[in-house]
Amino acid sequence: MDSEGNSAEHLRSSRGCCLKKLINNPQNVVTEALHGMAAAHAGLLKLNVEPPYLVRLESPVQGKVGIVSGGGSGHEPLHGGFVGMGMLDAACPGAVFTSPTPDQMLAASQAVNGGAGVLHIIKNYTGDCLNFEMAAELARAEGIEVEQVLTNDDVAVQDSLYTAGRRGVGVTVLVEKIAGAAAEQRRPLKDVAAIARTVNAQGRSMGMALTSCTVPHAGKPTFQLAEDEMEIGIGIHGEPGRRRMKRASAAEVAVMLVEPILADLPFQAGDEVLAFVNGMGGTPLLELYIMFAEVARILEGKGIRIARSLVGSYITSLEMAGCSVTLLKLDEELTRLWDAPVKTPALRWGV
Amino acid sequence: MDSEGNSAEHLRSSRGCCLKKLINNPQNVVTEALHGMAAAHAGLLKLNVEPPYLVRLESPVQGKVGIVSGGGSGHEPLHGGFVGMGMLDAACPGAVFTSPTPDQMLAASQAVNGGAGVLHIIKNYTGDCLNFEMAAELARAEGIEVEQVLTNDDVAVQDSLYTAGRRGVGVTVLVEKIAGAAAEQRRPLKDVAAIARTVNAQGRSMGMALTSCTVPHAGKPTFQLAEDEMEIGIGIHGEPGRRRMKRASAAEVAVMLVEPILADLPFQAGDEVLAFVNGMGGTPLLELYIMFAEVARILEGKGIRIARSLVGSYITSLEMAGCSVTLLKLDEELTRLWDAPVKTPALRWGV
Repeated sequence: MDSEGNSAEHLRSSRGCCLKKLINNPQNVVTEALHGMAAAHAGLLKLNVEPPYLVRLESPVQGKVGIVSGGGSGHEPLHGGFVGMGMLDAACPGAVFTSPTPDQMLAASQAVNGGAGVLHIIKNYTGDCLNFEMAAELARAEGIEVEQVLTNDDVAVQDSLYTAGRRGVGVTVLVEKIAGAAAEQRRPLKDVAAIARTVNAQGRSMGMALTSCTVPHAGKPTFQLAEDEMEIGIGIHGEPGRRRMKRASAAEVAVMLVEPILADLPFQAGDEVLAFVNGMGGTPLLELYIMFAEVARILEGKGIRIARSLVGSYITSLEMAGCSVTLLKLDEELTRLWDAPVKTPALRWGV
Repeated sequence: MDSEGNSAEHLRSSRGCCLKKLINNPQNVVTEALHGMAAAHAGLLKLNVEPPYLVRLESPVQGKVGIVSGGGSGHEPLHGGFVGMGMLDAACPGAVFTSPTPDQMLAASQAVNGGAGVLHIIKNYTGDCLNFEMAAELARAEGIEVEQVLTNDDVAVQDSLYTAGRRGVGVTVLVEKIAGAAAEQRRPLKDVAAIARTVNAQGRSMGMALTSCTVPHAGKPTFQLAEDEMEIGIGIHGEPGRRRMKRASAAEVAVMLVEPILADLPFQAGDEVLAFVNGMGGTPLLELYIMFAEVARILEGKGIRIARSLVGSYITSLEMAGCSVTLLKLDEELTRLWDAPVKTPALRWGV
């Protein structure tokens, strides 16, 4: 047993099996990771311990719309890795796959309010929506102007385990980047919210998994997939997708993800898009680039031009193996805002 | 079977088990991923198909030392993800965990030679060393000035499966960044090589694994680790480490990695370091930040200051779960070069 009272016992799950994770106590993973983030990125952000949130070092920025997001942990770098110049002002982490609480969201909103109001970016899960709504009411009661934007870009399923309507997934990263850039340019709250809604409206996503993930305090895989199976349309918490089927090639998976996305908006020949191939946490870059090549091939065949791209693990499900594809229809303004400087732990360019 | 002649058969290994990978044909993973990289990062780099290498878009840069690295694939983003302004001019990818060939290295050296000579950065594995040495001889015969720098920072073992002497691991990322910055400032070849050697001399690493990886064309895990086991001192190809033992906490793992690193240089109270916690490919950021917090706690206790940090999966072993720690003793010059602008797919800041 070490000085913190941890012992090998903590590494065993309730089922008695050993977790293949680099952790101490399953109950403390979020708190310990937050301290690690604050230590690693002390030049960009700081940690408020109670209630817990990560906040941009120079907050509140006077005259700038403050942007707050948050949600269950386990999707890193989302959201904490996006706190910094040109993106989020604060991120509220819940327990793994569990919504943060209204007091976190309220305290974060107070901390980032520089007099120009606060935008909440919320992935469409019932707990997140309820808690952010309550936080907004409390903040407004204190005279803080609050707008809220919901992301619901996942075309896989209409309702799901934790969601009424569509789930918010990959487009959230793009909303946070683009709305963050608009806020950085001192656009007023109404404009920043409108831009965020446009990104959500013009973005579509779908994901798949080759393996489950294991929530540390649950200690066993969230779901079971046979050695020769995959699940198409999976949610970022392992929620059921469209169908479970035999493993297919990257080319076949790309078709299964991209076709429903294209049909839904719909995307059309002549469109310029941002193509985002996202890893679920346990899938290496080598495979994500193979997927990107397949996505690019499909889009080229449809006359859709990839004007910007993002490849990597940005919205994850712990160590799940799998990927998601997000396409965002670009226009001049969105492209300019995407290209604008950003300086966060996980996205950084231009400054 | 699709238009490329791929079929579900290709997803089965020689052992008949289904690979849990997003690939088409195990024989084509590197080629397909290279095409994906070129498509995703067309503004930064281009792919030479035969012989295969990734090269900075504006190569050769006249008057600048050209920097070439390379090695077996499966360690992405190393090396191709580091091609761009302020880092590598070209990267030569071999098959997975297999050295590239001298003709790739020669062609890359020719392509990046802007008249100021070429630096080869080589991880210390026997195949890489032999092939880069042969490429250097061929390049020199053509009148290209070539310097070579070997990285051998892994304190775990003295000789290993593919290595005489120590293995080159995490410090390679730091050498490529820092030497790349020196080259960008138009320092002469001798200086750039000397700076690269200083980084290697002042850097030490050690890694560990919770799971094996599976080389696509091998189709079965490289090694076996029981559910309750881990391996300390593992190499980036799954080569044996120092010891196989029961799973331990993140705090205990951090001690097992950091103590041998500190003792080896040795690092001392008052030192300023860059602390790099690297994921092996299948370990999520949440766990890497828990590890970073533990590393930071140990260093603080020794009076060693973390002046810069890097957390993420930068030198990987396909989907292996695990991590490595690299510490680099900084001085003013190395810190300034680390901070200098870089614009590559995987590291990007300051421009």
